[in-house]
Amino acid sequence: MTPPNQPQPPSADAPDREARHQQRMARKQAVIQSHITAADQRRGVLLIHTGNGKGKSSAAFGLVARALGHGLGVAVVQWVKSRSDTGEEAFFRRQPGVAWQVMGEGFTWDTQDRQRDQEAARRAWAAAVPYLTDPKVGLVVLDELTYAFKYGWLDLAPVLAVLAARPAGQHVVITGRGAPPELVAAADTVTDMGMVKHAFQAGVAAMPGVEF
Amino acid sequence: MTPPNQPQPPSADAPDREARHQQRMARKQAVIQSHITAADQRRGVLLIHTGNGKGKSSAAFGLVARALGHGLGVAVVQWVKSRSDTGEEAFFRRQPGVAWQVMGEGFTWDTQDRQRDQEAARRAWAAAVPYLTDPKVGLVVLDELTYAFKYGWLDLAPVLAVLAARPAGQHVVITGRGAPPELVAAADTVTDMGMVKHAFQAGVAAMPGVEF
Repeated sequence: MTPPNQPQPPSADAPDREARHQQRMARKQAVIQSHITAADQRRGVLLIHTGNGKGKSSAAFGLVARALGHGLGVAVVQWVKSRSDTGEEAFFRRQPGVAWQVMGEGFTWDTQDRQRDQEAARRAWAAAVPYLTDPKVGLVVLDELTYAFKYGWLDLAPVLAVLAARPAGQHVVITGRGAPPELVAAADTVTDMGMVKHAFQAGVAAMPGVEF
Repeated sequence: MTPPNQPQPPSADAPDREARHQQRMARKQAVIQSHITAADQRRGVLLIHTGNGKGKSSAAFGLVARALGHGLGVAVVQWVKSRSDTGEEAFFRRQPGVAWQVMGEGFTWDTQDRQRDQEAARRAWAAAVPYLTDPKVGLVVLDELTYAFKYGWLDLAPVLAVLAARPAGQHVVITGRGAPPELVAAADTVTDMGMVKHAFQAGVAAMPGVEF
């Protein structure tokens, strides 16, 4: 007889359920372990965050935190600067080990000056190249670079050449909508961030800490 | 006659091209401005990062940086803990204004113990509730919470009730694959992070600073 105030025994089918769970998970673990064993290259990776949904730049900033936590040096170059009060810039500029460069001029529909946009985009690329050749920089974020290709501010071929020749251990993250197919082909990890819905559509303003 | 060493005049169609660009961007700016004016609610938003691609948790950690940059208090609760050496934990634990709780027990295929997983998931939820009722916490990250629903560790209804009753200005980010439809319905902003490709498939090991 079970004494009072003791846990009740599980129902009759519970041991079976637990055992089935254990067996299923053991099989899953074996499959995953074999994949992990097969993935044995250690090198810098090129990541692309593209698509129309929210999260492309924030996922890059999350990797900045992750890289700093492992003691890597980080450089961030931003192509499109729509405002000067972003939380990420305020926060990361005060962290040691981070170089932060904003070279863009704002959205092209705000400047309305193609020539000026192009010059700003080329200055941003000129600022990025030294990081992409410096093995002490473990992670380079090229934020919203894809717009430079979309609007014809930069040619893709020389950018691909610099990326291909970068230090072997260096990770690079490129963000922005409409990543060109040649850039996707050159990348190791590509995420398409699809918009299911956005608070803006429901009339919510851009909130600090979320949108900027 | 153009003197030597002066910039050459643009080709005949260039002024047209610049003018067309300016007009197109002015129209675009007007449309965007009208949308911005219409989005005038200021409140906390509920974000979901789901899908099979990389970036769900890193985008949440990017928002942590963004929120800290705006002086918000932040709390992070993690459901699935596969390793103890993550860069994000090392980095954010040393930042003022961040509470970081890891309550999960690792992937369920590693523990292979459904009962233990469920207890850990419920402890994690019990730890999250005080943050979700505290107006001094501006951003709460519930990292990989969706697995608690997938594996039946937590019921969705009480979670939805706590989210609905949270302080009006508080932002919440929930990450993980397979977000349940009721959770998506309750959210303001939902991104489905689709995997186009992943370095792991090409044999690259999980690199510190990128994957953890």
